[in-house]
Amino acid sequence: MPLFRVVAEHPESEARLGVLSTPHGEVKTPAFVAVATRGTVKAASADDVWALGVQILIGNTYHLILRPGAETVEALGGLHGFSGWDGPWMTDSGGFQVFSLGAGKVHGVGKIASIFPGEAVPKPTGPSLVRLTEDGARFRSIVDGSWVFFSPEEVIRYQRLLGADIILPLDECTSPFHSRAYTEAAMERTHRWAERALRAFEETQGLGPNPGQVLYGIVQGGAYEDLRRRSARVIAGLGFPGFAIGGSLGKSKEDMLHVIEWTVDELPKERPRHLLGIGTVEDILEAVRRGIDTFDCAAPTRMARNGTLLSAREEGFRLNIKNARFRRDEGPIEEGCDCPTCQRHSRAFLHHLFRCGELSYFRLATLHNLRFMARLMAAIRGRIAAGKPLDAASVMEDLGRT
Amino acid sequence: MPLFRVVAEHPESEARLGVLSTPHGEVKTPAFVAVATRGTVKAASADDVWALGVQILIGNTYHLILRPGAETVEALGGLHGFSGWDGPWMTDSGGFQVFSLGAGKVHGVGKIASIFPGEAVPKPTGPSLVRLTEDGARFRSIVDGSWVFFSPEEVIRYQRLLGADIILPLDECTSPFHSRAYTEAAMERTHRWAERALRAFEETQGLGPNPGQVLYGIVQGGAYEDLRRRSARVIAGLGFPGFAIGGSLGKSKEDMLHVIEWTVDELPKERPRHLLGIGTVEDILEAVRRGIDTFDCAAPTRMARNGTLLSAREEGFRLNIKNARFRRDEGPIEEGCDCPTCQRHSRAFLHHLFRCGELSYFRLATLHNLRFMARLMAAIRGRIAAGKPLDAASVMEDLGRT
Repeated sequence: MPLFRVVAEHPESEARLGVLSTPHGEVKTPAFVAVATRGTVKAASADDVWALGVQILIGNTYHLILRPGAETVEALGGLHGFSGWDGPWMTDSGGFQVFSLGAGKVHGVGKIASIFPGEAVPKPTGPSLVRLTEDGARFRSIVDGSWVFFSPEEVIRYQRLLGADIILPLDECTSPFHSRAYTEAAMERTHRWAERALRAFEETQGLGPNPGQVLYGIVQGGAYEDLRRRSARVIAGLGFPGFAIGGSLGKSKEDMLHVIEWTVDELPKERPRHLLGIGTVEDILEAVRRGIDTFDCAAPTRMARNGTLLSAREEGFRLNIKNARFRRDEGPIEEGCDCPTCQRHSRAFLHHLFRCGELSYFRLATLHNLRFMARLMAAIRGRIAAGKPLDAASVMEDLGRT
Repeated sequence: MPLFRVVAEHPESEARLGVLSTPHGEVKTPAFVAVATRGTVKAASADDVWALGVQILIGNTYHLILRPGAETVEALGGLHGFSGWDGPWMTDSGGFQVFSLGAGKVHGVGKIASIFPGEAVPKPTGPSLVRLTEDGARFRSIVDGSWVFFSPEEVIRYQRLLGADIILPLDECTSPFHSRAYTEAAMERTHRWAERALRAFEETQGLGPNPGQVLYGIVQGGAYEDLRRRSARVIAGLGFPGFAIGGSLGKSKEDMLHVIEWTVDELPKERPRHLLGIGTVEDILEAVRRGIDTFDCAAPTRMARNGTLLSAREEGFRLNIKNARFRRDEGPIEEGCDCPTCQRHSRAFLHHLFRCGELSYFRLATLHNLRFMARLMAAIRGRIAAGKPLDAASVMEDLGRT
C-alpha cells in the first residue's frame, strides 16, 4: 500500500483528493489533524473524537517526553495503546518548541507576525528557554525547570518509542523577525539535521511499537522565495516520502500563501503535503487550493475553550458564546449541525455553562468545533471530487446542508 | 399514578424496593441522585449521565437563581428544557446554603462533625454570609456580593419557575455545634416555614413549566432523639407526600445512623424518604438498611475530580489515581467495570491526564464514579428483590460481577 494516493485533482486549482494509508488506518485528504499534545485532545476523549469523524491526531514529542516519558509510552503500547486512540497518529518533533519557547518569546511573536505597516515591533514575552547549537537544542523543561537535550537523533529515537504513524525530524522554526541571514543559516542547519534524522530513522528501524512509521521532511526558509524553493528541493531530494511546511510564514496572510505556493511548486506531486499549525477556515481553503493535503492546528479546540464557536452561518464563521445576546437563545450553536452538542443543548445553556466555568462546557464546545472542522473538510473533499469551486461561500453552503 | 410504590420489602432490614413516579419518568429505588448544582453534572453532559444509568439529578435553587436566574430557566422550558436532561429533576431549596454559607463557616464544620473525643473544636473558615430572621434568609451572593433574600414563599416560587419534579421547602440546616436550644428553635422555625411553603405551593399551582411537581417536607432536629422524632411527626402531619432528612447529622457516623432510625420510625411507610447530602458507599448501605430510598451527594463526582476513583476491588472501595504505582498500570480503573472509561483507558493514561491537569481527565473520572454509583444501587436493588443480605462484602461481590 503506498503512503499516499491522489484520487482526484481539482480542475480549477492545485487541490487534490487523496488517501493517506497508515498502519492504523486511512485518512481521506484534505484532512484536519486534531491536536492532542499530551496524548489527548483537550477536554475530549478518544471515543468522542472518533465519533465526530476526526481521522487523525497529532501529539507533541517535547511534551510527551517530559510527561510521561517516551519509555513509559512505549511500555504501554506506544501512543496508540497508551491513549486509547487506535487510529492514525502523527507526532511533531519539538521543532516548534525551539521557536515558541525560544525566538517566539524573545520576538514576542507567533508563526505569522501580522504586523500592520508602521506598527511597532512587539515586545519580548520572556527570556528564551532554548539554547541552540549544531548538535541540537537544549530546552528548559516547562514541567520542572531542568534542561533536556533534543538532538536530531534523539528526537527520532523518542518518536520511535512513541510509535506515531507519521513522525517529523527536529527542525528550527524561525521567527518572522529573524534576519534573512539568520533564516538562511537556520535553514541550512535544518537541512543537516534532516540528513541526520534520516540516518537515525534507518538505524532505529525495528525500535518501538510501530515498525510501519514514516518520516516526513520539513521545509523551512522563512518568507524568502529563493530560500523556500531551495529548502523544498533539498528536502525532497533527500527522499522523504511526505513533507511538512514549517517555520515562519511571514508577516501577513499573503506572505503565508506565497510560502505555500513556492514550496508546493518544488515538491513532488505524488507525495503528501502537511501544513504545520494552520487551521482557520479561510486559511484552510486557501491552502487546499494551493495543494495542501493535511493541516494541524490547536485553534479550533482552543477557541472552543475560550468561548469562540464555529458556524457556517455566522460572519467570520464564528460566534462568541459569552455574548449576552445568547442568554435566552434556545437555538443550537449552528442550525443544521449534527454534533452531539447541537443535538441536545441550546446556546443559552452553553452561555450559562461558560459563564459559570463549568467543566462540562469545555467538552461540549470542543465537540462542536471539532465536528465543524470534520464537516468543513468533508465539504471540501466533496467539492474537489465534484470539480466544483472551492470558494468560502460555496463550501459554507454545502456545510449548511450536512 | 401514585408518587411512590413499595415493590418489595427486605426481610432482614427496613430496606425496600420502590418506584418513584415523576412527570419526567420513573426512578427505581433505592437510587442515587447525581448532583447537578447549576444544571449540569460537573464535567459530564446530559447524554453522558443518561448513558451511565443515572436516573435523576438534583439542582440547587440558590445557585440557579443567582445564575442564570429562575425567570431565564423558565423561559427556556424549565430545568428540563434548559439543561437537556429530560429525565427526573429534584431541586434543593437553598436551605443547605443557609448552613454552608452561615453557621458552617462560623463553626468550621460540615453536616457531620466527625470530632474525635478530646479533639479541639474547629476554627471558623470565614464570616457568615447569611442573615436569618423569621421572614427568611438573606444571603450574600457568591457571584457578585449583592444580598439576595430567600423566604419560604420565594423559594417555592423560584422552584415553580425552575420546574423540577421534586422540590424542597426552605429550611434551616443547623450545625453539629449548635446548642440544643438553638437546634430546637431552628427546628420550630423550619416547621413554620414548612407550613408557609405548603401554602405557597398551593397558591402557585399552575405557575411554571411543570404542573406535576411535588413538594417534599424536610425533617430537622439535629442529633437529638426527641427533636428528630417530633420534627418527623410534625412534618408528616402537614401532609407532605415525601420526606427529606436534612440538617446536622451529629458528631459521628453512629449519630447519623441514629438520626436516620429515629426519623424513619416516625414517617409513614408508604411515602418516599430522601437523605440529603450523604453518599459514601458505607453510608448508603447503612442508610438503605434503615429505610432510605434516595440519596444525593456531591462526593462521587468531587472525588473523581480530585483523583479518587471508586472500585469494588479496592480497600475502602477507592483508589487514588495520583499514586505513582499507577504510572505504568495497563489495567482499567476497576476490572469488570462496564463504564466508557474502563472500556477504553488504562490507569496509566488516567494517571498521566491527572498529572497534566488535562480537562479530559475530569470527565473520564466522573463517568467512572457515576457508573460505579449506578452499579452499586443496581446491586443493592437486586439484593433487596432477592431478599439477600445487604452487607458491604456481599454487595461488592455482586458489583464485581456486573
